Amino acid sequence: MQPTPHPVLFLVSAPSGAGKTTLCKQLLATHPELRYSVSCTTRPPREGEVDGVDYFFMTREAFEAKIMTDDFLEHAEVYGNYYGTEISFVTRVLAGGNSVLLDVDVQGAEKIRTALQRPGLAPRLCQAFCDVFVLPPSLQALKQRLIQRGKDSEDVIERRLEQAGAEILQADRYQYQFQNADLNEAVLTFQSIYRAASYRTWHSNRS
Amino acid sequence: MQPTPHPVLFLVSAPSGAGKTTLCKQLLATHPELRYSVSCTTRPPREGEVDGVDYFFMTREAFEAKIMTDDFLEHAEVYGNYYGTEISFVTRVLAGGNSVLLDVDVQGAEKIRTALQRPGLAPRLCQAFCDVFVLPPSLQALKQRLIQRGKDSEDVIERRLEQAGAEILQADRYQYQFQNADLNEAVLTFQSIYRAASYRTWHSNRS
Repeated sequence: MQPTPHPVLFLVSAPSGAGKTTLCKQLLATHPELRYSVSCTTRPPREGEVDGVDYFFMTREAFEAKIMTDDFLEHAEVYGNYYGTEISFVTRVLAGGNSVLLDVDVQGAEKIRTALQRPGLAPRLCQAFCDVFVLPPSLQALKQRLIQRGKDSEDVIERRLEQAGAEILQADRYQYQFQNADLNEAVLTFQSIYRAASYRTWHSNRS
Repeated sequence: MQPTPHPVLFLVSAPSGAGKTTLCKQLLATHPELRYSVSCTTRPPREGEVDGVDYFFMTREAFEAKIMTDDFLEHAEVYGNYYGTEISFVTRVLAGGNSVLLDVDVQGAEKIRTALQRPGLAPRLCQAFCDVFVLPPSLQALKQRLIQRGKDSEDVIERRLEQAGAEILQADRYQYQFQNADLNEAVLTFQSIYRAASYRTWHSNRS
């Protein structure tokens, strides 16, 4: 028999404006065993940022050395800075009996799925993995939300919508998908998927 | 994109005394779209039993004809009477947008898993399928519950415990498993697994 509930490597993606941040905050607030993933980055710390809490800050050389030794589940270069999720961080949290919340975009999610196929990776890491895509009720509703949020210009909103359309086409790559139409329902669904994942049988033929 | 939430073929097994009946009642009470599976049987209706509600009553000849044409998801003969779950019943409920709750033992569950591999079966039936095993907190706790229930003699309790031990060894055959130690927690877990299943992505490489 396996220990249940067991730790979950919980990945969530969503188009900008689909409500992912709110859902993640609610989930973290109600599940103390769930830890937000701490990424590595080569960008300099900002005022008040703490190493090991906000990010693991490192030099470009150190980051590139880790790339060479396949230490990342995923990494990307954004505006000249590297960002990445270190396998050893995730493994350490899971081994401690806690779960990890990964908030990544569809490209990051795809990289992680590929990385999890690597031979030699701890099988528990793959078994703990659960990915979810949060769908907006519709692109029209998403547009309304982005307008109401008032953070973006018309141009940026158009670009975000185009990107959202492309991202939604990737929803079927995820184990779970649901629409965030009603927030209370969406919170319940998000919590249910997370909770259910911690009771999944290991060593079944699901990856 | 697929419709979500989508209907679920929700199978639950548990050793006698693990609290499966209570969990099922709670789930049915809170989920009006979930229907308890109506079995076919050759045993004569008892006082007050309604055809199509309690069972689909049929003759031995009719039942055996359905066996020959592979119409059952599972069937068994118990004390000279046949009992079985008809594929067309399950398919009809799912096609109507409702979910089906199947309460079967480990043998029945195994037969259903095998039946779902049959070529020609609607792929949605396999995709809708989710099976859960409810574990008692321990065999010792199970014994206590069976004694407190006061329904069984000492002999019967011993036999039930032996059987429970054998059944628990099959828990890893199920997609999900959880212990019913605290009833409120168990209800929440059971509901979470059911809810999550209705948001699983179809056509993934999970069966």
